[in-house]
Amino acid sequence: MNRIAVRNIERASAEIIEGLAKVGVSTAHEALGRMGLMHTGIGPRQQGARIAGSAVTALCAPGDNFMLHVALELLHPGDILVVATLSPSTDGYIGDLLVTAAKARGAVAMVLDAGIRDVAEIREMQFPVWSRCVSAQGTVKETVVSANVPVTCGGAYVVPGDIIVADDDGVVVIPRLQGARVLEAARRREQDEVSTRARLNKGEVTLDVLNLRSKLSDRGLRYVDGPVDWSGGDKDI
Amino acid sequence: MNRIAVRNIERASAEIIEGLAKVGVSTAHEALGRMGLMHTGIGPRQQGARIAGSAVTALCAPGDNFMLHVALELLHPGDILVVATLSPSTDGYIGDLLVTAAKARGAVAMVLDAGIRDVAEIREMQFPVWSRCVSAQGTVKETVVSANVPVTCGGAYVVPGDIIVADDDGVVVIPRLQGARVLEAARRREQDEVSTRARLNKGEVTLDVLNLRSKLSDRGLRYVDGPVDWSGGDKDI
Amino acid sequence: MNRIAVRNIERASAEIIEGLAKVGVSTAHEALGRMGLMHTGIGPRQQGARIAGSAVTALCAPGDNFMLHVALELLHPGDILVVATLSPSTDGYIGDLLVTAAKARGAVAMVLDAGIRDVAEIREMQFPVWSRCVSAQGTVKETVVSANVPVTCGGAYVVPGDIIVADDDGVVVIPRLQGARVLEAARRREQDEVSTRARLNKGEVTLDVLNLRSKLSDRGLRYVDGPVDWSGGDKDI
Amino acid sequence: MNRIAVRNIERASAEIIEGLAKVGVSTAHEALGRMGLMHTGIGPRQQGARIAGSAVTALCAPGDNFMLHVALELLHPGDILVVATLSPSTDGYIGDLLVTAAKARGAVAMVLDAGIRDVAEIREMQFPVWSRCVSAQGTVKETVVSANVPVTCGGAYVVPGDIIVADDDGVVVIPRLQGARVLEAARRREQDEVSTRARLNKGEVTLDVLNLRSKLSDRGLRYVDGPVDWSGGDKDI
Amino acid sequence: MNRIAVRNIERASAEIIEGLAKVGVSTAHEALGRMGLMHTGIGPRQQGARIAGSAVTALCAPGDNFMLHVALELLHPGDILVVATLSPSTDGYIGDLLVTAAKARGAVAMVLDAGIRDVAEIREMQFPVWSRCVSAQGTVKETVVSANVPVTCGGAYVVPGDIIVADDDGVVVIPRLQGARVLEAARRREQDEVSTRARLNKGEVTLDVLNLRSKLSDRGLRYVDGPVDWSGGDKDI
Amino acid sequence: MNRIAVRNIERASAEIIEGLAKVGVSTAHEALGRMGLMHTGIGPRQQGARIAGSAVTALCAPGDNFMLHVALELLHPGDILVVATLSPSTDGYIGDLLVTAAKARGAVAMVLDAGIRDVAEIREMQFPVWSRCVSAQGTVKETVVSANVPVTCGGAYVVPGDIIVADDDGVVVIPRLQGARVLEAARRREQDEVSTRARLNKGEVTLDVLNLRSKLSDRGLRYVDGPVDWSGGDKDI
Repeated sequence: MNRIAVRNIERASAEIIEGLAKVGVSTAHEALGRMGLMHTGIGPRQQGARIAGSAVTALCAPGDNFMLHVALELLHPGDILVVATLSPSTDGYIGDLLVTAAKARGAVAMVLDAGIRDVAEIREMQFPVWSRCVSAQGTVKETVVSANVPVTCGGAYVVPGDIIVADDDGVVVIPRLQGARVLEAARRREQDEVSTRARLNKGEVTLDVLNLRSKLSDRGLRYVDGPVDWSGGDKDI
Repeated sequence: MNRIAVRNIERASAEIIEGLAKVGVSTAHEALGRMGLMHTGIGPRQQGARIAGSAVTALCAPGDNFMLHVALELLHPGDILVVATLSPSTDGYIGDLLVTAAKARGAVAMVLDAGIRDVAEIREMQFPVWSRCVSAQGTVKETVVSANVPVTCGGAYVVPGDIIVADDDGVVVIPRLQGARVLEAARRREQDEVSTRARLNKGEVTLDVLNLRSKLSDRGLRYVDGPVDWSGGDKDI
Repeated sequence: MNRIAVRNIERASAEIIEGLAKVGVSTAHEALGRMGLMHTGIGPRQQGARIAGSAVTALCAPGDNFMLHVALELLHPGDILVVATLSPSTDGYIGDLLVTAAKARGAVAMVLDAGIRDVAEIREMQFPVWSRCVSAQGTVKETVVSANVPVTCGGAYVVPGDIIVADDDGVVVIPRLQGARVLEAARRREQDEVSTRARLNKGEVTLDVLNLRSKLSDRGLRYVDGPVDWSGGDKDI
Repeated sequence: MNRIAVRNIERASAEIIEGLAKVGVSTAHEALGRMGLMHTGIGPRQQGARIAGSAVTALCAPGDNFMLHVALELLHPGDILVVATLSPSTDGYIGDLLVTAAKARGAVAMVLDAGIRDVAEIREMQFPVWSRCVSAQGTVKETVVSANVPVTCGGAYVVPGDIIVADDDGVVVIPRLQGARVLEAARRREQDEVSTRARLNKGEVTLDVLNLRSKLSDRGLRYVDGPVDWSGGDKDI
Repeated sequence: MNRIAVRNIERASAEIIEGLAKVGVSTAHEALGRMGLMHTGIGPRQQGARIAGSAVTALCAPGDNFMLHVALELLHPGDILVVATLSPSTDGYIGDLLVTAAKARGAVAMVLDAGIRDVAEIREMQFPVWSRCVSAQGTVKETVVSANVPVTCGGAYVVPGDIIVADDDGVVVIPRLQGARVLEAARRREQDEVSTRARLNKGEVTLDVLNLRSKLSDRGLRYVDGPVDWSGGDKDI
Repeated sequence: MNRIAVRNIERASAEIIEGLAKVGVSTAHEALGRMGLMHTGIGPRQQGARIAGSAVTALCAPGDNFMLHVALELLHPGDILVVATLSPSTDGYIGDLLVTAAKARGAVAMVLDAGIRDVAEIREMQFPVWSRCVSAQGTVKETVVSANVPVTCGGAYVVPGDIIVADDDGVVVIPRLQGARVLEAARRREQDEVSTRARLNKGEVTLDVLNLRSKLSDRGLRYVDGPVDWSGGDKDI
């Protein structure tokens, strides 16, 4: 799996990808069964973007973006470039030039378990990026690793062609073959929430709307009439 | 103190709470004697909000927001829901549905030593939240702990009914019975700063405005005329 | 080097400083040879500022901003106050009053390896600050250390009079005597990027624009035609 | 609560304290209902110590151990000195001299939400310490805060006279009035574990010993006969 | 992939596993091509252990070790239990009772992206464990996720049956089908190092032993005769 | 300052270096005026070592130890190799082979703002190392930076030839020309502590031994007779 670049990958249909972009990260992640979320250290470098696309991956040495250049050429319109590193790096793996290149290839976003630079320019270009941090520290182009192979990025396993969904809540990876099932489940969740939201807006409490009261008492919750004086004796309530 | 939910708590007066909201976190914290500040990891998820309210608390298991639902029902208009966990968790304890529920009960803010999700929607709802992070990871509803009991949140001790003040500088906890005293001290501080600010605007330096010069020389500061060549010899100045 | 404050320092010319402000942190850092960058924990407390100035330094005890007051008096128009601490501190070393004082002296920015407070007010005053965090926790004025001596701030070595360049990408320190050389090199870099950007916009890939293909194959990259079934056997590709 | 030192506090009985030292942190923490644990950043600076004692507290400014000297005088034989700071500090609040002083007063351990120094000498003195870190950085003696008042240390709330239990698993705070109840519950837990351990040693599995099988199937676990080919199709199992 | 437990998995041969245990983590990781290393936060809880075994995995909810009990039953002699969580948790997922159970099943080690407790007792039992931390905080048994499915643990992807190698340098995951190839490459590396070590012991420098001198000069290194005065002018060397 | 290796540096006398090794880090750091301490993240990888030597530096790219090989050749007997990186790296920059090489050159220790590997073997070789972490991740040899130039390591500024003192308390950098002065001051401190220790051993408290009582009352400390009921009213003491 070392020193290879894979030229053709399978992608999910545009319809599924667009559908997942609309439901967003939190709902898609629930629909997948709470799997595939990148850790919270991988955050948006802009506010308000919500996007989905097919993963094209670059596996890079720390402080070295050589394989990112290889991956750039493998991008198809609608793809998201996912950059992982062999060991932790905060360096700025992309700047405005590489975003220019990615946009010209039709990429819709980038996700990096590393840093980016030229963040002001990239925000102006309206190209959404999720990264570990921002750093002016540039990278070298010395070490060949791989492109378009499975990687772990932000603690999540990404196979090329998997569907990446990203918004202000973070980044989730949907296995390509699960896309249709997840989209359907996500839409059902959204449907279910409509009536819940209506009831909550009217002032009903979630204990009733979600039928939690009997579970609460089964597990031993006691209601106590306060106010309580929380000094020494309080702990014997 | 386990598995209880306390139904009635005492709250500070609306007048004191509104007064503290206006002075803001940094001044209130000084006025309290530099106590009660949550650590800097608990940050605002929006920009420009400044608020105060009475604490209603939920003590939750990690990855489990069951007690938050119990606490929601205990909220009165003007309250702030404070969520603590038994051990560290970055999960998304609230989303737009629970914020809908909290707003419907009259809550004015939430403070969580944990994550939130649906952050874009929550910002749109203009409901201010301070949290440790943003995470799409949902929670379960399995473990009963307690609601409206004293907790430590962000390293600060919070008794239900304490006054929470929160803005872009962070979150501070004012013990309920200290509210009036703190508000008065805070207003005196603000008054004192008016003339200081005027003098500084005119170009006076703080060494004079704050009478620091004699303290400086007492403690041994020497002024040296530079420029200094900071090579080897410099360290013998 | 203890308990001294240095009154006169040499500064770079306004022309060089203004030039470096325009090229920004990432380009200036490259031009210097990838030295002098503060670590990514020192971030902007506002968005979109890009500035340069001469460093005036304060070396403070943790939780104690006494020397910052000494340094304020040493500021000349166009200077940037750089605050380092003897050991890590997240406290709020400056608030709106000290920013008022700094602006009145002509300072153009502050960089702190520590926290700030009154961040909302400071943003309104449009005074750019780079810091480790935001914290309402105030400081004392008890311990005399030094002002306008060399310090390490954010992991970078800063000699008074060095040129600080700061923007959304972070903070870089340019040794004063290197300013002219770095500015020239930075401008050459910008020039070189014009044609690169044009070629990338037309859809050329960086592997060609930067002549990377032969280096890639020299170092052993093989292209593989996918799609690949990434189960057990995949790893023998 | 500012600038006071409290001279007399109530302590738990020696019998309860000795009993809790024997059961150790993990069992005591369970017996208390999973409350009161300091976070994992407060670790032992030696291996194999297991101890309990009554808390005497010092609330210190960052980088300033003045109040620790006040608290030292308040120590009785069998006490544990608990040091909290107004804001985070990694400085070395104690060294071998202060440990000498504490031992001479009969203290049995120290717990610091801060650093220590002279760690090699302190290990040789066989005086157990739990701290956030080790640091040679000394502190000043300038700022008066308080001694023997409630503090939060390592995220746990400590009232003077509470029982501190500490071992290689960490540090837990048992409210003084809860000591007897917790000790009894802890001993019951230990008793219960005897037969469990015996059954596990014989090779029984916890699913049987703890009667977990029906709960597992109620919540939907399905057993699948492997081996499974974890490529694309795997995710539809 | 949710709510399943896989009963039979394929394992590498005992010969390969024993061979990899002998070469250790650093050499095995090099031989694999610098893949599969868990991040440095997953460290040994003892000193001097060096071990290898087949991975049996448990994917757990945060603060909930229910699936670990399921996985315990799936252990064969020689296996290593690998515990991953759906979101970050520092809780103590295992204590001495579960280690007793694991040893009785023939397990040789555990690796957890979480905490452990009873660490003193576990060290006495001489059962090696690698974990993120030590914490007395116990877990619940409420949420069913999966056992013996692929997981990411410490940022590395682990398929059940993969070979885990662990020692004081950390933990590496060798894909099962790569075991023989990696072992062979690791032994070659060890062989190569014998003569290198001999030459270094004689005082030869690595620049000669590894033939690095021409590469150095090709890339522009200049030797300068010192001593250099590292003041202002130094930077023009 | 780029791409150079400096061949001759000035070193402090063996007498001063040996003297500083004996006083240790905490005392030397105090004697220097609390400057020059590396941050607490740079810790010992063994227990009980206490050493001093002259700094020879390597400035390396992240994940690349090329310059460390250059620096190895520049080592004289009694030197300590100090390794800094251009941006943060946790990789294992040295293993047992490079320690073999360093020992053969007479080096007495290494300090790395990065990781090491083969830590078990290095402990057996009794070669003391201070590093940020342990990691099996190897490095490449591609990028030429510099050797024997000033660096910042662990946040401290190190000029080649400076005296490094390291023990279980951490690592401190003593400027070469300050060595004699610091050693003398350190010995005076040790002398002063003899009588203090004697008085403390007899049971005197530090408030008396260090004459702190009047300073305490000047700054407003009040003694309160407890026990205090720390409920609501407590805060008005």
